[in-house]
Amino acid sequence: MVSGAGAHEVIIETPDHNKGLGDLDVDWITDVLISFRERIKDLFLDPRLRYVLIFKNHKAQAGASIAHTHSQLIATPMVPPVLKQELTVCRENYRAKERCLICDLIKQEIEFGKRIAYETDDYIIWAPFASSFPFETWILPKKHLYNYALLSDDGLSKLAYTLKLNLLSLKLLLNDPPYNFVLHTSPPKFTRPGHPEHWDSIEFDYHWHIEIIPRLTTIAGFELGAGFYINPTPPEVATEYLREAINSYVGKTQEEKKISLDR
Amino acid sequence: MVSGAGAHEVIIETPDHNKGLGDLDVDWITDVLISFRERIKDLFLDPRLRYVLIFKNHKAQAGASIAHTHSQLIATPMVPPVLKQELTVCRENYRAKERCLICDLIKQEIEFGKRIAYETDDYIIWAPFASSFPFETWILPKKHLYNYALLSDDGLSKLAYTLKLNLLSLKLLLNDPPYNFVLHTSPPKFTRPGHPEHWDSIEFDYHWHIEIIPRLTTIAGFELGAGFYINPTPPEVATEYLREAINSYVGKTQEEKKISLDR
Repeated sequence: MVSGAGAHEVIIETPDHNKGLGDLDVDWITDVLISFRERIKDLFLDPRLRYVLIFKNHKAQAGASIAHTHSQLIATPMVPPVLKQELTVCRENYRAKERCLICDLIKQEIEFGKRIAYETDDYIIWAPFASSFPFETWILPKKHLYNYALLSDDGLSKLAYTLKLNLLSLKLLLNDPPYNFVLHTSPPKFTRPGHPEHWDSIEFDYHWHIEIIPRLTTIAGFELGAGFYINPTPPEVATEYLREAINSYVGKTQEEKKISLDR
Repeated sequence: MVSGAGAHEVIIETPDHNKGLGDLDVDWITDVLISFRERIKDLFLDPRLRYVLIFKNHKAQAGASIAHTHSQLIATPMVPPVLKQELTVCRENYRAKERCLICDLIKQEIEFGKRIAYETDDYIIWAPFASSFPFETWILPKKHLYNYALLSDDGLSKLAYTLKLNLLSLKLLLNDPPYNFVLHTSPPKFTRPGHPEHWDSIEFDYHWHIEIIPRLTTIAGFELGAGFYINPTPPEVATEYLREAINSYVGKTQEEKKISLDR
């Protein structure tokens, strides 16, 4: 029996009504990301909660009911199906190969190169090879870590920089599109009381990341009925555009030195 | 290896630009439903195709790119994941209980009564107990049948009547809302060459039906990220409204005798 316990919190990202998350300074975005971490750590203390999902709806077509920029947190008494499937696939891969699936994927994709829109020492911005949505990107940490809540302030500051570039490049390219982002991280470790083995290899098999989905197409009858997504923009094409937008932005900011992005 | 074979067809439901599917006469809707059947039968002859999905997008928010009323057919070289899960659950239930899951469900729901918006000798309009969307309904045939393509003209005429009532009641109640419908029917029987046992009990375990989803809410970050759907309208409440709308419509048409619905 699933309990009815849960939590729903709204993170107001700035008092400024006219800015989006990507418009904020890196330090400010870092504070938003730190607040995510602190809320996850706190909610993980409640044994009734089996997952903490953090997501963002930007603009009405992406489900936002208010214009002022904000993120949301919903904690649930079960691991949501989308995450459960991902966690299960990663665990199965680990049991078969004794390696993290997403670490392998990052290595392959960096070698291949054509779907990496940006790369720092710590993160890549990746357009997934089977993207469900046009210009879908994932921010993947190069260093293996299963749980977002274990990141240091410094790690989050570097993430904030990458996230800012990702969001600004989408805004520049696609005229401030509606988008969703979803933080994919591990459930609390002992999420099945009495079943300590359930996610017992999770620190080795899972790899946290952020998925960002611009909402340029409509989820229609075929998508709902089939579970297949029609994506007219190959990720390799999206990557070229994103790379150009990011590079022009990085160049511009370094030149004008208005915002210290190069940290 | 999946082949790239497929088909995409558009069914123009009427030459009249100003009518929706529910506005058409029952005979006309019957012809549309017959065209679905004939196209499925024809495409089932192609062994490369493992599924034929028929669906409809009404209005832009439901994914329609043209206003003129139409349905679509997409045939795929694999069974789409949404259907595969449903077929698998039905098969597992049959293996465990030697009964059709959906037949059992219909029996229980008719007994319970509070989620049945309309009932004829042949069909029910049902608001599912775990509806993902407000005012979601399924049209379920009371008689067990796995494959829509086996229906007679008479069976389809009765379905047309029920579908008309369903669509008109949604139009009346919700101000002509955007909606999707999806026909759920079996794949061709020997859909896995070399694996004749794969769907071998399908004629006993699966039960075709139509799912109709008004698009009143937005699929946002939580829905995409979690796979859970937030539905603010309990199906029992939706049922009360739908029942009233259908009954007022049936009463009105019988009184005015403008359209012969009572067939």
